[in-house]
Amino acid sequence: MTDDRVVVALDVGGTGMKCALVGPDGVVVRTERHPTDAARGPAAVVDTILDVAAGLADKARADGLSPIAVGIAVPGVVDEARGVAVWSANVGFRDVPLRDLTVARLGLPTALGHDVRVGGLAEARLGAGRGTGHVLFVAIGTGIAAAHVVDGMAAVGAHGAAGEIGHILVRPDGPRCGCGRPGCLEAVASASAIGRRYAELTGETTDAPVTAAEVAERAATGEQLAGQVWREAIAALADGLASGQALFDVATIVLGGGLAQAGDRLLTPLRAALHERMTFHREPQLVAAALGDEAGCLGAALLALDAVGVRDHQEKR
Amino acid sequence: MTDDRVVVALDVGGTGMKCALVGPDGVVVRTERHPTDAARGPAAVVDTILDVAAGLADKARADGLSPIAVGIAVPGVVDEARGVAVWSANVGFRDVPLRDLTVARLGLPTALGHDVRVGGLAEARLGAGRGTGHVLFVAIGTGIAAAHVVDGMAAVGAHGAAGEIGHILVRPDGPRCGCGRPGCLEAVASASAIGRRYAELTGETTDAPVTAAEVAERAATGEQLAGQVWREAIAALADGLASGQALFDVATIVLGGGLAQAGDRLLTPLRAALHERMTFHREPQLVAAALGDEAGCLGAALLALDAVGVRDHQEKR
Repeated sequence: MTDDRVVVALDVGGTGMKCALVGPDGVVVRTERHPTDAARGPAAVVDTILDVAAGLADKARADGLSPIAVGIAVPGVVDEARGVAVWSANVGFRDVPLRDLTVARLGLPTALGHDVRVGGLAEARLGAGRGTGHVLFVAIGTGIAAAHVVDGMAAVGAHGAAGEIGHILVRPDGPRCGCGRPGCLEAVASASAIGRRYAELTGETTDAPVTAAEVAERAATGEQLAGQVWREAIAALADGLASGQALFDVATIVLGGGLAQAGDRLLTPLRAALHERMTFHREPQLVAAALGDEAGCLGAALLALDAVGVRDHQEKR
Repeated sequence: MTDDRVVVALDVGGTGMKCALVGPDGVVVRTERHPTDAARGPAAVVDTILDVAAGLADKARADGLSPIAVGIAVPGVVDEARGVAVWSANVGFRDVPLRDLTVARLGLPTALGHDVRVGGLAEARLGAGRGTGHVLFVAIGTGIAAAHVVDGMAAVGAHGAAGEIGHILVRPDGPRCGCGRPGCLEAVASASAIGRRYAELTGETTDAPVTAAEVAERAATGEQLAGQVWREAIAALADGLASGQALFDVATIVLGGGLAQAGDRLLTPLRAALHERMTFHREPQLVAAALGDEAGCLGAALLALDAVGVRDHQEKR
């Protein structure tokens, strides 16, 4: 039996939008990328989102496919129940009723989701957490955020703000976080925090500061200060993940975001540090994300499929 | 229409069992208390549990009621899916298939739950969190544990170990926890940790150490060391609850356990300290538990009602 149904999926970021047509089996049949160009202001960004979504639906029909729903992922605070992009610094959104706008324009059922939560959904159902039921997806980049996914559903919270693992306390005497509090995980162990800490210790102040990936690289070649910064970050990450595991008791922790591209330089010492912190806990698997920067778009597609009750793609558990 | 259905509910603790017959509307129609007498060994405790449950079912029938299910709450690690009391120091259980044993003896559908998780279930559905959808119940006594309840279901975790908020890191330089790690919330802010810290600072070493309630009392009368210990504990609790809120984003935090009996001496400063820590977060209500030591037994009853698909009692949300 052939299935001509597809969903239109968009992952809207601060610089670009990753877009796709995805079948009920989770297979991507077409992808597109478009600039967000957020400097134009939120109204123009919304127009672009609607144009791109409508364009993809038209292309689907031209190819003999039937678009059945739309899924859109955005960063920031997202009220998924009401379909409203409550607040997003990157994209300039403030209380944008993106779901209703999309329904009005395309006439298709639409789901709005949070970028990290839908990324976690995709990793849990189609990626590195597949088949394990209880997954914590942790994206480590400029910031740190997480999605707790149980049986293929990501926890949203009472106000659309669940999963902010970057803001759990790990170092009360540590640096002040962007959120205003001292010692948040994000202030100590995000990719940007690692670069900052290294610059602070070495006194290197150039236009292009050393990145976390370079710190990991230099640590691997035996550079002492880089080694210290990297070890401190690993210890803080392990503390944060151990606190998360105490609360969530997941089977699998999936690490994504830019820092996860450090691969075994991150995973090997982090696994050891996490193991050391597991006392009464059941120890989770710690694995790298499998879907790369497509996770958000695939997750938006899953939200859309869920919205119309289609879950053929999902792994049996 | 009269409803003659009841469930048999038992909350098995280290010293006593709280038992009840509960109707589908959550109303308790009979209560009993029995000693656990754990020193007799786990086999004898299991026999007592089965005798008490069978006795309650018989009394229900004698009163013209129809027992339709059994709910049992136990402490420790509980595999709710398999109905096995995996491990409990208090009661001496180790891999006891309590659900199947109860089904075999009483011939009624039976649900096994974790004492804090079912306590949270009851507070969320019938108690202080009623009507708010997303609840974090935190029990502070000898230890600290939590239950995250969303839409009337408590998160269990992949291995039955979710909710261990007592073991999130809050003070890396703090005292060592019973679990073996330094600086866990429980090692700094449980009722026993507060008593210990006060004894340490004052050098008071008597057979009956000063309790956390007394520390709160002495702090209220202006005793300086007691004030310091109480403030340190409040700050650590606020840090722990703020980390929990970052991850869970609940509408309501319900405080239970022995320490919550300190009432406004705890709640007023803790609300202020939590407020100070809310940056990007949506601030939860912070309230005292409403069901006292009956929460576990009521929660066991809710589990039993859920097991047979009866949820008449539940608040609309």
